[in-house]
Amino acid sequence: MPRAKKSALRKKAGNPRRPGRPEGETFARERIMNAAEVVFSELGYARASTGEIAARAKVTQALVNYYFGSKERLFKEVYVRRANEIVKGRLERLHALTRGANPFTLSQVLSAYLEPAFAIRRTRGGRAFLRLQWRLLHSEPPRWGASLRKVYDDSAREFVAAIREIAPQLSEQTAYWRIVFIIGTYAYMHSDTHRLEQISRGACSANDLEQMLAQAKAFVLGGMIAPDVQ
Amino acid sequence: MPRAKKSALRKKAGNPRRPGRPEGETFARERIMNAAEVVFSELGYARASTGEIAARAKVTQALVNYYFGSKERLFKEVYVRRANEIVKGRLERLHALTRGANPFTLSQVLSAYLEPAFAIRRTRGGRAFLRLQWRLLHSEPPRWGASLRKVYDDSAREFVAAIREIAPQLSEQTAYWRIVFIIGTYAYMHSDTHRLEQISRGACSANDLEQMLAQAKAFVLGGMIAPDVQ
Repeated sequence: MPRAKKSALRKKAGNPRRPGRPEGETFARERIMNAAEVVFSELGYARASTGEIAARAKVTQALVNYYFGSKERLFKEVYVRRANEIVKGRLERLHALTRGANPFTLSQVLSAYLEPAFAIRRTRGGRAFLRLQWRLLHSEPPRWGASLRKVYDDSAREFVAAIREIAPQLSEQTAYWRIVFIIGTYAYMHSDTHRLEQISRGACSANDLEQMLAQAKAFVLGGMIAPDVQ
Repeated sequence: MPRAKKSALRKKAGNPRRPGRPEGETFARERIMNAAEVVFSELGYARASTGEIAARAKVTQALVNYYFGSKERLFKEVYVRRANEIVKGRLERLHALTRGANPFTLSQVLSAYLEPAFAIRRTRGGRAFLRLQWRLLHSEPPRWGASLRKVYDDSAREFVAAIREIAPQLSEQTAYWRIVFIIGTYAYMHSDTHRLEQISRGACSANDLEQMLAQAKAFVLGGMIAPDVQ
């Protein structure tokens, strides 16, 4: 890519010049990742190509290869970037509760779990990622799933621990089952499958994010405080 | 396929000879669909081929084309066959409650919704279908999703009506949100993503179907009876 064009793009985005760093590098890298997020989400991994991603990012395919080496590495970086953003948002909220001076409620803990994904859903790229993540559950190659989702594991266990602190009547097993049910509820909600609109014949809309979050919080809290199974 | 082989297979499966019908037709057709269910589930729609399906079903590819015409039609038939089986199981259970002489509970209605999928999960083909269905949520081509899932729509609305009969305090909107959350919980549970095992470090297993069903029932009942959102 000619330097003049890169400079123009950098200027447009207001990216400050950092001395000692290839001009526009961070910016081009991020722009490729943003484009990849949307393309993978729309086409799935198998059908997406680095050529298409390069075109969408308005860079050469050589630049995509220079930064990421392969479609696989690009995919993984895109996934991990957003997953880490969600994990960070969850843990910040959780730690504000568990490390704060005041007692906290189960409802607050579950809100801390749910809210970060809603926050990122408000952006185009974020929404694309949530669909992508869903898609990944059974897209090719499935062997990646477990290793990528590992990003979430430790934080999920922290939530289970916090839940059991407030609801000690729940066995550890039951708390694990329930956090996974919550993951299912949450993942499906963000899958853009439009089941809600279809079944309700348009009486409800998953585009109403306030309503979606409120409904999700009530449902998962009810499920979490249900009597333990024995 | 030579006649002798077809007869032997028919005999093995105990399929009775029906006069006036090409020998083994139903059987070969079903065997192709059973193979297709597994192949689509393992490879996804895009990567599955009728050649692979024919090989798995031990028939010629010409026979697959003869019965189904195209991969697309085969896929849709496989989907609709199982979806109808689940819908039938749900409605039989639901009608036994709503058309019976005795009062029924919300717990019974939700069990009627959840149980049929657990029943089919006990078979290899059924389990493959549940994965496949999950996969379809965002596999290519996504435009099919809504039309295929329509198979479930009327029965989902019947469940919403039955739920509101027992829980009239829930608004219609809330009942729709909650049935969709239950669909998410249920779909994820059958997705074989192994999140439960991964997060719990093996303390829980989604292969324990009794436990899974009991846990799911408790969770969705708790979610359904949670105070309405306003």
